[in-house]
Amino acid sequence: MRESELLAHIYQRSAGMAAGPVVVGPGDDCAVVELQGKVLLTVDHLIEGRHFSSGMQSTSPDQVARKAVARSISDIAAMGGTPVCALAAASLPPACKNANDLFDAVHRWAAHWHCPVVGGDIAISEGPLVLSITAVGTAHRTRGPVLRSAAQPGDHVYVTGRLGGSFASGRHLSFEPRLEEARWLCDLLGDDLHAMMDLSDGLGRDSGRLALASGVAVELDADRIPLHSEVSSWKQGVTEGEDYELLFCVAPHRAFPAVITNRRTQVHRVGTVAKGSRSWVLLPEGDRIEVSDMGWDHRA
Amino acid sequence: MRESELLAHIYQRSAGMAAGPVVVGPGDDCAVVELQGKVLLTVDHLIEGRHFSSGMQSTSPDQVARKAVARSISDIAAMGGTPVCALAAASLPPACKNANDLFDAVHRWAAHWHCPVVGGDIAISEGPLVLSITAVGTAHRTRGPVLRSAAQPGDHVYVTGRLGGSFASGRHLSFEPRLEEARWLCDLLGDDLHAMMDLSDGLGRDSGRLALASGVAVELDADRIPLHSEVSSWKQGVTEGEDYELLFCVAPHRAFPAVITNRRTQVHRVGTVAKGSRSWVLLPEGDRIEVSDMGWDHRA
Repeated sequence: MRESELLAHIYQRSAGMAAGPVVVGPGDDCAVVELQGKVLLTVDHLIEGRHFSSGMQSTSPDQVARKAVARSISDIAAMGGTPVCALAAASLPPACKNANDLFDAVHRWAAHWHCPVVGGDIAISEGPLVLSITAVGTAHRTRGPVLRSAAQPGDHVYVTGRLGGSFASGRHLSFEPRLEEARWLCDLLGDDLHAMMDLSDGLGRDSGRLALASGVAVELDADRIPLHSEVSSWKQGVTEGEDYELLFCVAPHRAFPAVITNRRTQVHRVGTVAKGSRSWVLLPEGDRIEVSDMGWDHRA
Repeated sequence: MRESELLAHIYQRSAGMAAGPVVVGPGDDCAVVELQGKVLLTVDHLIEGRHFSSGMQSTSPDQVARKAVARSISDIAAMGGTPVCALAAASLPPACKNANDLFDAVHRWAAHWHCPVVGGDIAISEGPLVLSITAVGTAHRTRGPVLRSAAQPGDHVYVTGRLGGSFASGRHLSFEPRLEEARWLCDLLGDDLHAMMDLSDGLGRDSGRLALASGVAVELDADRIPLHSEVSSWKQGVTEGEDYELLFCVAPHRAFPAVITNRRTQVHRVGTVAKGSRSWVLLPEGDRIEVSDMGWDHRA
């Protein structure tokens, strides 16, 4: 495979994609996109052996592409935004036989979430496959971008869906970015939706980041944390990561019931924002365990 | 080194950077930037062993960062645009001892070209260092984005600077993206600046891409191609790549003299756009050699 052949395949696949906000798609020095107002920008690296099993024998190009795109889309969802377009950059090992399949799948999944791939870069290089997806989005029309830094003491804390066991179950390859749920929360709650983020490194570490950014403490009730059926302890739900659910904080006067369901997704209250710092799990027996550092943190 | 420590360093370095169009900088799920109109988007992967010598003993973190940022900035220049902000994603080998230095240098060089790093992603992973820079820019106020697809038969073809020997000389680590020259060309020529691109894979292959995108032939005169002093043959100038000079096509009635100088950079006429396809070098003896496939194309 030559890079030029792969590029030709990509350009052919992208012909005539200039539509809507996309003025110039793949093939020029830059993509050109019409944008107005507050634009959301995010990038994620998906790395073979780190974010999916080594070798595309065990993880198909379709699954690799889906996860890479979904992670960046999940960041757009985490701000309450709407995807506009994406860029894809890949470093492909020389032995990669199905680069065309991979790129087709990236385009397909990006289009699935209304986030067409408008440009990118490829290189063939020794080393693991690295697929980097930049996603561009627009903020919610009325609510604006929902940050993680505006939680306030007294807020009720919720998560969408259930947590834990994402790697073991394979859900890390098939999760649905919570675009629709985030939009629904923005529509419904407006400025009373104080803070939001997505859960990638585990509820413990991620709620610790929200606490740090907001200058508050997050207190989680161990027995409220919604776990997937095969997950046996709150610790797994708090530490395993790769859930890609939303964690959000709501002003107490607009608080939901403990469990509600938006069409397809349950939302569970998991705790409360308090004065202080860091994130904590409150056990039924009354103990308070710090969980801000529990979760994924690769040490070299 | 832990990822969380590196992230803490990055966030600390980025504190208070929300200014101008940047509403939210690093540390949230997405960056938030105010943008209006035609936005330019580009991403490039810089890979250890492919785009710079393996091991940061031979290439310093500063040089690696500079090249990664400059390549993406050069894409913005190639459309006649102005940089606004950047995202940086890195896959770092566990042995990488100077990740903080690398990130500081990325921030420094991005700021140097008025393109602050507003977000990113890091992961520690086996394999070569991969540094992916997404650059966001705005198109020229009056000329709009200059594409590579609008060259017309009869156009005069120019390059900025001199070509060849970029790897051997180390210039691939120290080139200056042609932002200022591109802006000057847009100001001066407006719509008579028909097409432009930057030269990354060599004048042969890149002019072939311009020819293909525009549906024309590009004819280059071997003895007009401006070479660096240590480069002995036009073939090196056409094939070696990594020049990061501008290649551009001008309507004949607005054509420049053969050699002009904008403050710091000479511009040389190298040929003419003709009906037909592909790119060619015309030798003084009258031979016509196709060069569309001459240049960098990694084969696995």
